[in-house]
Amino acid sequence: MDIKTIEWKAGRIKIIDQTMLPGRLEYLYLSTTRELWRAIRQLQVRGAPALGAAAAYGVCLGLKKSKARDVKTLRADAERIIAYLASSRPTARNLFWALERMRRVFENYQGSSVWVIKDDLLKEAQAVAEEDRASCRAIGEFGAQLLNDGDAVLTICNAGALATIDYGTALGVIYRAVEQKKKIKVYACETRPLLQGARLTTWELKKKKIEVTLLCDSMAASLMKQGRISTVIAGADRVAANGDAANKIGTYSLAVLSRYHGIPFYIASPVSTFDISLSDGSAIPIEQRNAEEVTSLFFKRPVAPRGVKIYNPAFDITPHKLITALITDKGVLYPPFYNKIAQLEGIKR
Amino acid sequence: MDIKTIEWKAGRIKIIDQTMLPGRLEYLYLSTTRELWRAIRQLQVRGAPALGAAAAYGVCLGLKKSKARDVKTLRADAERIIAYLASSRPTARNLFWALERMRRVFENYQGSSVWVIKDDLLKEAQAVAEEDRASCRAIGEFGAQLLNDGDAVLTICNAGALATIDYGTALGVIYRAVEQKKKIKVYACETRPLLQGARLTTWELKKKKIEVTLLCDSMAASLMKQGRISTVIAGADRVAANGDAANKIGTYSLAVLSRYHGIPFYIASPVSTFDISLSDGSAIPIEQRNAEEVTSLFFKRPVAPRGVKIYNPAFDITPHKLITALITDKGVLYPPFYNKIAQLEGIKR
Repeated sequence: MDIKTIEWKAGRIKIIDQTMLPGRLEYLYLSTTRELWRAIRQLQVRGAPALGAAAAYGVCLGLKKSKARDVKTLRADAERIIAYLASSRPTARNLFWALERMRRVFENYQGSSVWVIKDDLLKEAQAVAEEDRASCRAIGEFGAQLLNDGDAVLTICNAGALATIDYGTALGVIYRAVEQKKKIKVYACETRPLLQGARLTTWELKKKKIEVTLLCDSMAASLMKQGRISTVIAGADRVAANGDAANKIGTYSLAVLSRYHGIPFYIASPVSTFDISLSDGSAIPIEQRNAEEVTSLFFKRPVAPRGVKIYNPAFDITPHKLITALITDKGVLYPPFYNKIAQLEGIKR
Repeated sequence: MDIKTIEWKAGRIKIIDQTMLPGRLEYLYLSTTRELWRAIRQLQVRGAPALGAAAAYGVCLGLKKSKARDVKTLRADAERIIAYLASSRPTARNLFWALERMRRVFENYQGSSVWVIKDDLLKEAQAVAEEDRASCRAIGEFGAQLLNDGDAVLTICNAGALATIDYGTALGVIYRAVEQKKKIKVYACETRPLLQGARLTTWELKKKKIEVTLLCDSMAASLMKQGRISTVIAGADRVAANGDAANKIGTYSLAVLSRYHGIPFYIASPVSTFDISLSDGSAIPIEQRNAEEVTSLFFKRPVAPRGVKIYNPAFDITPHKLITALITDKGVLYPPFYNKIAQLEGIKR
């Protein structure tokens, strides 16, 4: 499989337009930060780790147009770009984490050459992307130990190659288990309202020739009751210091249902998704999105009466006490999480 | 409000085509049992109590074409029609219960006039419909006592006027509470795959000027966690002798989530929905429906890869131990249910 979710290509950001999947595999070449901002906002590129890389490349993209002739002016331009990109979506930690890394390139630069620092910035963005690739492999390696031959894994949204640079977090665990010759069956929640499970996860898994069954989100409990789910694995958009995890709306529901049915519930995410400046999940900002996502079924004909009030949060918070373990790129963490998270290599406040 | 879900009109069955809502309020006039069978199958008419009336009228509709000149031949024709209509959908108890009532008209008839018994049959079908109207009012009256001023009620699918002859079961409870001047806010789960919540429940409630907020099914847990739901009320398609209740897929999920969050969970349904020939829910037949309902978002453009495997049960079973009370037309039953159900007035094995 060769899914190139996001790349820096001849001075532009090349992404798969994920709103076109599974119908068409189409690439977009983004030339301006405004184009990138809109691509993020419209979920043409999505998934916390992929958003990290997108934001890092976005700073390089924006600075290409900068007329700054000194590092100080360049930095002022960069700050404007960083603030703009930070306004695209609020929940995914990686986006802010990557922008912070780009800011630190300025902090660490002692010289005065606009060209050198631009080169440093591009190298940093490439590093963000490359490290994510390695992180996903590590998550896969650690997580695959938790899966047994014959397991049926339920997942939500898309935490696969399309959500990262390559391989994925939750799906990375499954990919690695399959590479280890374990027979794994996947159940994919369609993930309303924007159907990342139906459109993206099934597409990836079919490409990898992994058995996948699609279901509506409301059907997960019925499968669990029948004993047909061995394990639930979800990704995360932001994990707080105590292990509370924000992820796609519906994840919390699955965590409660898993607990009730005695099924292990895992969150798979790299250290870059952890935000230990927040003591618990209640401080994680939850994006509220447009009513049309719910009423118009993925932007098509209206299915609800005009003007009906809509509740449409993009994420929910799963409290740490419902999480069996956190699968990170530095190892698997079991509760209690607090000290183990604080001691993670590479964790930053 | 004047929602005429189903009526016998000049020798035809007149129904609202519910697949057209909320876009258009369109009526269909059904002249043959084949047209009725298809209308039931395609959910143009749906909801357990409405299906009871549809089946009863369906027998009259079919017999209009009978050339039988004696009661025995007419009865043979009726048995074929009953078997055919019984094959339309398997889960809703009322459909079979109403067909059984029509069969009993033959059993109770002592005379030999084809015309008299045809008249008796139509009267019985009208009685099925009229009794349902009264049942819904009784459910509303009993159930409204369980709601307090200011309550926020979560519901799934449509258990309102469109699912019955008039008024509804779960929504009947809300309608009655509102008539009693209680301020009630409703949260409607959209109810994938066929979106009866988004299309029908919001439409009914807006017509009644009751505040309603639509959400995706996966979002219910998030609302519960925030303390924004006081009560959950769902309808039922079939209730077993021990209180286990089959209802729209996703109901069981809400029952588990309600238990976890300490929220009362009620099932509202008339005695005609009870099937005490089944000792528990495991024997209730669960309809499996077409993959296209999931993959093509209400029969529109595909949103999942071609050929992907689909899990699409139309119903699930909520075990009695998760049900706070059963709201029936004969009163509110609290656990343990078994003896109370067996002693319900009008219950038949």
